[in-house]
Amino acid sequence: MQRKKDKGQLIVLSGPSGVGKSTVIAELLSQRKNIYFSVSYTTRQPRVGEQDGVNYNFVDRAEFERMIAADELLEYAEYVNNYYGTSLRVIQDRLEEGVDVLLDIEVQGAAKVRARCPGALFIFIIPPSFEELSRRLHRRNTDSEDVIAGRLEKARVEFKEIPNYDYLVINDKVSGAVAEIEAILTAAECRVENRESILTQFA
Amino acid sequence: MQRKKDKGQLIVLSGPSGVGKSTVIAELLSQRKNIYFSVSYTTRQPRVGEQDGVNYNFVDRAEFERMIAADELLEYAEYVNNYYGTSLRVIQDRLEEGVDVLLDIEVQGAAKVRARCPGALFIFIIPPSFEELSRRLHRRNTDSEDVIAGRLEKARVEFKEIPNYDYLVINDKVSGAVAEIEAILTAAECRVENRESILTQFA
Repeated sequence: MQRKKDKGQLIVLSGPSGVGKSTVIAELLSQRKNIYFSVSYTTRQPRVGEQDGVNYNFVDRAEFERMIAADELLEYAEYVNNYYGTSLRVIQDRLEEGVDVLLDIEVQGAAKVRARCPGALFIFIIPPSFEELSRRLHRRNTDSEDVIAGRLEKARVEFKEIPNYDYLVINDKVSGAVAEIEAILTAAECRVENRESILTQFA
Repeated sequence: MQRKKDKGQLIVLSGPSGVGKSTVIAELLSQRKNIYFSVSYTTRQPRVGEQDGVNYNFVDRAEFERMIAADELLEYAEYVNNYYGTSLRVIQDRLEEGVDVLLDIEVQGAAKVRARCPGALFIFIIPPSFEELSRRLHRRNTDSEDVIAGRLEKARVEFKEIPNYDYLVINDKVSGAVAEIEAILTAAECRVENRESILTQFA
């Protein structure tokens, strides 16, 4: 059961390229109410099927650098020669309305959010094995062997950051990963510090 | 999904008399595998329908005081002139086997477990309102008005301990309370520090 909340929960989701994050997020958003997916800004080119304003807000480098200079970003990072970043104002508005906000960001960006928002929930998604990650990247069929090798090497570096996260979710089956994230969000709602308004009537 | 664990999770459940804890626990145990309910020892008289070894291990004061002297108890407390306590050895064995252990203990006992087992999960169950707690105690029809008044007064004192708990679960409907506890336990399994054995294969 979801109750009206005083303030939304900020949720940071990270995981290596190819782990299936987008599918997990789409399924989570279809099942859970009162959660807003923060669409990141990026300077990278859209992949086939990606839509501006849905998968990412696609902007050029000049515009991205203007946002950095104007301090409009909660975090940003450069990754494979492209910028990725998160708009601060949109997130703050949603949290104030009592809506949870989900960020899909990589480990550098997550580290910046951790420093600025200690109350956020940090979730890392891993594949069931390293070999399975390689299989998924090949199956996706969008990248050359060189790019895949680069993504796998990057994944090894990202895995070293897992101890800085609160939760580790294994994307073996999408339904299992979604169920675990739902449990993590429900448990967060049950934390004593998030139910203080309920407590006041017993004081 | 529940995975094989290296070590079980100790779960402490508290809540005022009449909140419906026994019903919630029975439903939780019927739905969730790999969880062991620790049957407390008590010197109080069995209520109608209560069975020795199921609801409590009923012992006399002499035996209880022997257990205290022999240091066989994880915690014990005196409440309405009766002793209540938890056997240490049974719990340790289950946790080592990777089985979660659920303790139903009141706030004094919980404080002792908190001091000895900082990794335990502490959950407090509240009724939707104080008035509803009073209604439930009257509906139970086992206690005199004086005893009910004493239980309500005791509940007010217990509520002050809630900030020392990790989670607050509202027993409005049993199914909702059970779902929240299940989410809390699943989330605990997903904590990075509880999945270190999975992490090793990515190192």
